[in-house]
Amino acid sequence: QEIFKMMDIAADKLRHLGAAVDSIDMGHQELPDGQNLPIPPILLAELGNDPKKPTVCFYGHLDVQPAKKEDGWHTDPFTLVEVDGKLYGRGATDNKGPVLAWINAVGAFQALNQDIPVNIKFIIEGMEEAGSVSLDELVKREKDRFFSNVDYIVISDNLWISKKKPALIYGTRGNIYFTVEVKCRDQDFHSGTFGGILNEPMADLVSLLGSLVDSSGHILIPGIYDNVAPLSEEEKKMYETIDLNLEEYQNNSQVERFLFDTKEEILMHLWRYPSLSIHGIEGAFHEPGAKTVIPAQVIGKFSIRLVPYMNISVVETQVKKYLEDIFSQRNSSNKLKVNMTLGVHPWIANIHDIQYIAARRAIKTVFGVDPDMIRDGSTIPIAKTFQDIIQKSVMMLPLGAVDDGEHSQNEKINRLMGILGTFFHLFSIAKLGHYN
Amino acid sequence: QEIFKMMDIAADKLRHLGAAVDSIDMGHQELPDGQNLPIPPILLAELGNDPKKPTVCFYGHLDVQPAKKEDGWHTDPFTLVEVDGKLYGRGATDNKGPVLAWINAVGAFQALNQDIPVNIKFIIEGMEEAGSVSLDELVKREKDRFFSNVDYIVISDNLWISKKKPALIYGTRGNIYFTVEVKCRDQDFHSGTFGGILNEPMADLVSLLGSLVDSSGHILIPGIYDNVAPLSEEEKKMYETIDLNLEEYQNNSQVERFLFDTKEEILMHLWRYPSLSIHGIEGAFHEPGAKTVIPAQVIGKFSIRLVPYMNISVVETQVKKYLEDIFSQRNSSNKLKVNMTLGVHPWIANIHDIQYIAARRAIKTVFGVDPDMIRDGSTIPIAKTFQDIIQKSVMMLPLGAVDDGEHSQNEKINRLMGILGTFFHLFSIAKLGHYN
Repeated sequence: QEIFKMMDIAADKLRHLGAAVDSIDMGHQELPDGQNLPIPPILLAELGNDPKKPTVCFYGHLDVQPAKKEDGWHTDPFTLVEVDGKLYGRGATDNKGPVLAWINAVGAFQALNQDIPVNIKFIIEGMEEAGSVSLDELVKREKDRFFSNVDYIVISDNLWISKKKPALIYGTRGNIYFTVEVKCRDQDFHSGTFGGILNEPMADLVSLLGSLVDSSGHILIPGIYDNVAPLSEEEKKMYETIDLNLEEYQNNSQVERFLFDTKEEILMHLWRYPSLSIHGIEGAFHEPGAKTVIPAQVIGKFSIRLVPYMNISVVETQVKKYLEDIFSQRNSSNKLKVNMTLGVHPWIANIHDIQYIAARRAIKTVFGVDPDMIRDGSTIPIAKTFQDIIQKSVMMLPLGAVDDGEHSQNEKINRLMGILGTFFHLFSIAKLGHYN
Repeated sequence: QEIFKMMDIAADKLRHLGAAVDSIDMGHQELPDGQNLPIPPILLAELGNDPKKPTVCFYGHLDVQPAKKEDGWHTDPFTLVEVDGKLYGRGATDNKGPVLAWINAVGAFQALNQDIPVNIKFIIEGMEEAGSVSLDELVKREKDRFFSNVDYIVISDNLWISKKKPALIYGTRGNIYFTVEVKCRDQDFHSGTFGGILNEPMADLVSLLGSLVDSSGHILIPGIYDNVAPLSEEEKKMYETIDLNLEEYQNNSQVERFLFDTKEEILMHLWRYPSLSIHGIEGAFHEPGAKTVIPAQVIGKFSIRLVPYMNISVVETQVKKYLEDIFSQRNSSNKLKVNMTLGVHPWIANIHDIQYIAARRAIKTVFGVDPDMIRDGSTIPIAKTFQDIIQKSVMMLPLGAVDDGEHSQNEKINRLMGILGTFFHLFSIAKLGHYN
C-alpha cells in the first residue's frame, strides 16, 4: 500500500509540473503461496508536444528494498535526513532520489521561467525490485502511442564507479542460466547400503561442473569466446582513465586477491568478457551437520554472463554439446538433462550517439570533467527492452555515487549533483539532438 | 510415552520368565530446540547364574520408526495383523519381533519343562532409532558387573539378504565423514558485480570433490587401499553360495546398471571394499529456481565407508594431504579447511568363533541349509561397541527376511522362523560353547 501512495504522490508532482499523467492499472499478480496482490500502477506522463523539439523519456521506479532501523541504520530509513550534503533514507539513490531529480530539473526550468528545451515524458513503475512484472507488456502496448514520438530514453538507476567522478553507462552484460540434472532414480540411497556399486549422480555432477571453468576463470567450453567483440584501441583507452582506486576497491570487497592485477584487466573481465559462475546444487544434502545420503537426482546450476556479440542460441548449443560429451566419456548409467532456463541478451550502446555526446557535454559543464565511460557487469533487462521494442537510443545516466549503499544500510545520495546533471543534460540534448 | 509403556511390558514379560530385571533410569536428553525429554530406561535382565553354563547376552530395542496408515499401510501399523503366516505391524522385524522371539525362545524351554542350557541376559533399549543415546556409557559402566560373566553377545537387528535363506552377519563397514570448506569471505557475491574476477569457491570445491573418485567408483586418494584386507580364497568362496537374485535385486533397487556385473563383485564392493560418496554442499544455492549468487563460503561433504583393516587416522591424513595438494595446484586465493567430523571403525568377527559355529548348526537343524555368511555395508556401531568394551564374541543373528520392509510401509516378520532359530541356537551354543 505504501507503493500505491508513492505512485499517487509522484502523479501529483508530475501534474503540478503541468504534465498529463496516466496511471495505468496493471492488474493483479498471483504469488506462489496463492496470495493475489494488486500490482502498483505504472505512470505515463508527458509534458510538451512541440514537434520541433526532441522528446526525452525518463524511466524510474519508486519501489525500494526493505529496510529496518535495527539492520544498522543510523537514522530512520523512511525519514529523509540530511547530513553534510548527503541525503539519507531508503530509496535515496535507488531510485526515488533520481526520479525526484528529474522532476526537479523540469521544475527548475519553470522556476527560472525558461522554456523547457525538450518534450519530456516519464515512465515510472513500482515493481522494479520485484522483477518489473508486466512492464515489458506495457512498453510493447504503448510502442505506437506513448513511445511513438520518443527520441531518447534515459535511465538513472545505476551508480558511478567513483565516489566523485560522474559516469555514463553504455553496456550491461546478459545472462544465460543452465540447469544440469543427473538422475539415477527418484528416491535417495543410503550410502551404507548402496555405496560402492553405483554411478553416483553427485560424482557425475561435480565432474561436469568442474569441467566448466579453470582456476584462472577461463571458460573451458569450446568456441564460447568466438563471438566476443574484439578489443578496439579506442575501448582499451577508455579503461585507463576510469576513476577506480584498485586498493580501495579490493579492501571494500574483502577479497584477498582478484584473478587480475590491473584496473584495466579487472574492468574488462567484469564488463566485456563473459564469466561463468556455479551457483549451487538442488537435491543434494545442504544442511549443517552430517547425513550419509547418496542423492539420487541432483540439479547443478550455473550461469554465464554474456557480452556483445555472443549469441544466446549458439552458446546454448555449445554448452549442451560440451556437457553431453563429457558425460558420455564417463560412461555413467545415469540420465543427463541440460536445460537453459533463462537467456537475457547483453546490451551495448553506441557511445558516439547524440545522447551520449550531449550527456558528456552536460557533465563536463557541471562537474568540469569528462565522465567515466563505464558498463555494468550485471544484467539489467530494461535498457535492452527499450532498445529492442522502441528501437531508439537508450542511455544510462547514473546520478548516484559508488558509496551510496543501494540495497544496503544507510543508503544516501549526494544533494545537488543529480539535479544539476539532469538539468544540463536536457539543455545539451536540446542543442544537439533535435531530430529535424 | 509409548516407548516407556513398551519398556514396562517387556520388563513384565521378562519377570514372568523368572528373570531379575533392572530398569535403569537414563536421565534426560536436551534437544537442539531446547526441549528436555526423558530418555526411556534400559532394561538389564538376567535369568540363570549357573557357573557351569555359558552366558549369552541378547541385545534388542523396542523403539520404532514413525508410521501412519495413510503412508500406504494396508493395515493399522500399530495393530499386529497376521496374513498368510506373516505378522504385519511397525516394529515387526525392527526390532520388537526379534526381541519377542528371544523371550519366547526362553519361554519355550520352560513350557517344555526343559532346563535352559545357558544363562541368559537381555539388554533392551528404547533409543536405537534415535542414535542409542547413552547406551555406550551404560555398557562401559556395567562392564565389570552385568557384563562380567557374559561369554557371547547376540544382536538380531538386521535382515537376511534373501527372502527365505537365513544368514549370519560377521561384519559391518565403518564410516569417516569429511567437510571441505572453501572460503573467500563471509557474504555472498552477486555474479553480475563480481563474476569474472574471483576465484569462486564453488569452482574450487567442485574441482576438489571431482578429484575424489573416478567414474568407475575407484577412490583416487593415494594409499587409501593399502590397508584393505587382502581377499582370501575362503572369503571369495563365501560370496558364491550367497542367495542373491541379481536381477531381482537390480529391479527392486530401480537402478538401471550397477558398476559391476556379477553378484560376487557387487557384494564385495558393498561389504569388503571402501566406497566414497559425495553427499552435498552447504552454503550454496540449493532451492528450486534460479539465483545468480556466487556463494562466498561453501562446505562440501563426503564420507568413506571403511573396511577392515583401514585405519581412521591414516585415512584422515591421506584425505587431507590429497585435497590440500590439489587445492594448492589451483593457486586459488581462497582458504581451504578439511575436517574429519566423524570416524566409526568397521567391525568384523571371526567366523570360526564358537558362537558362529553354533549358529550355523542351529540354522542347519531348523532350516536344513547352511546360512549365508554375509556382512552389512552400513555402519552399525553397536557390534563394535560391545566387541571393544566387553571384549567378547559378538554375533549378528538376523531373524528378518530381506523383504520385511524395515523402516518402510507394511513392515512384517515371518512367523515361527525366528523363534525356532533362536531356540536351537541356545541349545547349540550350550553344547559347543561351554567355557569350561
